[in-house]
Amino acid sequence: MSIYEIITKKKQGLELTSEEIDFFINGYMDGSVADYQASALLMAICLKGMNDRETFYLTKAMLNSGECVDLSRFSTYSVDKHSTGGVGDKTTLIVAPIVACLGGRVAKMSGRGLGFTGGTVDKLESITGYKSQLAPECFMSQVEKIGICVVGQSGNLAPADKKLYALRDVTATIDSIPLIASSILSKKLASGSHNIVLDVKCGSGAFMKTSNEATLLAKEMIKIGKSFGRNVRALVTNMDIPLGYAVGNRTEVWEAIQVLSGKGEKRLSEICISLAANMVSLCKNIDTGLAKSLVLDAISSGKALDKLSEWICYQGGDISFIDKPEKLLKSSYKQEYRAKSDGYICKMVADKIGYASMHLGAGRVKLEDKIDYTAGIIFNKSYGDYVKSGEVIATMYSSKNYFDECILALDDAIKISKNEPLSEALIFDVI
Amino acid sequence: MSIYEIITKKKQGLELTSEEIDFFINGYMDGSVADYQASALLMAICLKGMNDRETFYLTKAMLNSGECVDLSRFSTYSVDKHSTGGVGDKTTLIVAPIVACLGGRVAKMSGRGLGFTGGTVDKLESITGYKSQLAPECFMSQVEKIGICVVGQSGNLAPADKKLYALRDVTATIDSIPLIASSILSKKLASGSHNIVLDVKCGSGAFMKTSNEATLLAKEMIKIGKSFGRNVRALVTNMDIPLGYAVGNRTEVWEAIQVLSGKGEKRLSEICISLAANMVSLCKNIDTGLAKSLVLDAISSGKALDKLSEWICYQGGDISFIDKPEKLLKSSYKQEYRAKSDGYICKMVADKIGYASMHLGAGRVKLEDKIDYTAGIIFNKSYGDYVKSGEVIATMYSSKNYFDECILALDDAIKISKNEPLSEALIFDVI
Repeated sequence: MSIYEIITKKKQGLELTSEEIDFFINGYMDGSVADYQASALLMAICLKGMNDRETFYLTKAMLNSGECVDLSRFSTYSVDKHSTGGVGDKTTLIVAPIVACLGGRVAKMSGRGLGFTGGTVDKLESITGYKSQLAPECFMSQVEKIGICVVGQSGNLAPADKKLYALRDVTATIDSIPLIASSILSKKLASGSHNIVLDVKCGSGAFMKTSNEATLLAKEMIKIGKSFGRNVRALVTNMDIPLGYAVGNRTEVWEAIQVLSGKGEKRLSEICISLAANMVSLCKNIDTGLAKSLVLDAISSGKALDKLSEWICYQGGDISFIDKPEKLLKSSYKQEYRAKSDGYICKMVADKIGYASMHLGAGRVKLEDKIDYTAGIIFNKSYGDYVKSGEVIATMYSSKNYFDECILALDDAIKISKNEPLSEALIFDVI
Repeated sequence: MSIYEIITKKKQGLELTSEEIDFFINGYMDGSVADYQASALLMAICLKGMNDRETFYLTKAMLNSGECVDLSRFSTYSVDKHSTGGVGDKTTLIVAPIVACLGGRVAKMSGRGLGFTGGTVDKLESITGYKSQLAPECFMSQVEKIGICVVGQSGNLAPADKKLYALRDVTATIDSIPLIASSILSKKLASGSHNIVLDVKCGSGAFMKTSNEATLLAKEMIKIGKSFGRNVRALVTNMDIPLGYAVGNRTEVWEAIQVLSGKGEKRLSEICISLAANMVSLCKNIDTGLAKSLVLDAISSGKALDKLSEWICYQGGDISFIDKPEKLLKSSYKQEYRAKSDGYICKMVADKIGYASMHLGAGRVKLEDKIDYTAGIIFNKSYGDYVKSGEVIATMYSSKNYFDECILALDDAIKISKNEPLSEALIFDVI
């Protein structure tokens, strides 16, 4: 067996065996397969595809390249969620405490943001004192005690995926369903939860541009998850426009509290309720309708907000903001962004708004960049709203008094039209 | 412009612009495009193809990456040939002096052998004293005086092709018509001849397995050559079985003298006469039939053999072997290879015979390996011949008394059958 023969086989569109896929992944990790050979094979996979069997073997090989978290002590109650990434996506902050207060065990590892997408761990670290690195035994005992713990991703879960992803990122080999599916699932499977709910985004701010592509990806991930004996469900959701009013870090924590207080923006609340209901449905093995009524009750009763408070407190965070969320919106400088004409907001391009927020200091260009936690944007208006010229559309927050680049980016992202736009669907499918 | 965008474009099957192809080649040469990005693009080219325009731009970019030899002083009389590689291919040794004694100007750079294919420069260097490295002015003045000079390839011709070829060799991205065509032509165009005759091989011992593929490659190269204002003609020939009786280095020089003395093996003589006739036809702008009669006359009159002698002498080689070619077959050890049964020789697999000869010391595994010039094989029998059990099929020559591996390889390469095999075509097409 040689990597040359394996590349040739895939180039000819033939199915790779389990042994060949292991040979590739193990060789790539030990250096006997070079970067330039791996990238040639990745391109052949992008163009010739992989069937379900191959995608399963690839997932397995990447999963086996590192450690796996053992959550068996939580039986079938452990539950995880994963979003394929977006702008303004603070759903974990909202969904995790809801599910935990309804009996789910949320032992979660989350990622950091890069480029225009934010990361849950950054949002949590924007809370003064929050500890995102815990020893494994502390992580486990917290989940046992209060049902929830969220930390940063350990470097030892699916390291082959990490190395391959970095290569795909610079060789234009990202957008392949088998590669995306195996990448996401190798990490999620290694994280150990029995139940997994996937939020597969589609639209301008996502890898999958159409809901059809996103549905294909979702189905592939469900198949693989099931092959590993896990319960997997997927929502296919819209990422043409940002999720909710807030983009940034503390600004998004602020919005999470709004939702858990029953005062959240409609679309964001809807997606969080659906994600939480599906997670509860899986780990309690109950109907999604029943699960949804439990979720609504957890919010209206204040139990979910209490769980958020308990969680943050356990991980060392300052919880004084729970009662006074406006504390989260303090920044050295702020400025309003106003409408330039009368009309309906007919475009709010998600990725461009993500870049606008990055210019304020809320995001990273490179992984080692520092984040300004006070930076971000809060919109007063949404897609489809009517505005008058000069009316405030958004407020920008930053620790530096320089808003020009952000304003230019918002000018590019937001379009106002005389015609009312069609309303956009939010949840395309639950699979 | 970025290499990421260029890879994405080709992955989507779109046409690359001249600027994008220059960006890729220049970036690959200056290191700003990494190996792993180049290999991803090469795989996308293998699978999505390139149209004539793109192949032209790629050839041009690689041509422009180094120096070009200026043969304009020879007007339209300069003529080159190129073979896509094979086993027992000593045609340059035969064809070049024929063409030179008929008025063509053969200012030629040839390659070295690697793996199972032999190289013309190695065969010439097997002649005691032959100098394959000459200063440019000596090279030119020799062509002016006697019409012929053959040296080793300079590292400065199309260096981008050299670097890319090394990458293609380890990433399974060799067999793509636009990549092969641009690779061959960038070097041939840089070598400066106005007329070029290509010998495109097909069969087991060649990259192109079928004559249809070889014809496509030939047509592509003719188109590109014409776009650069050169006269290009191509022969599509059979490389299922080795060319002629001899494989090795001095053994092949010996066989070249046989052909130039009118005593050559039929198929080898036929291909040499056709190559020479087409080269003469191009550089004298005469009909191929007329050119062929001139070629036959050059052989029968002894003028071509005299030209070989003059050429070798000018480049410092010992020419005493011209009158006594058997001097070339002296080796420390030799052994006969005999038929194991009665029957017709129905297989002589070219690449396997090449490997058999390598085992005697006649070839290189790595570029830095030393060649045993006395090593090689001379066959007494050809494809289709009837042999009796125990009859000598070939004689093996070597400076070491170890023939076991060569015999095993010949056992694998040569098959004897009770049934007379179909005769195989030699020249499939002249384009």
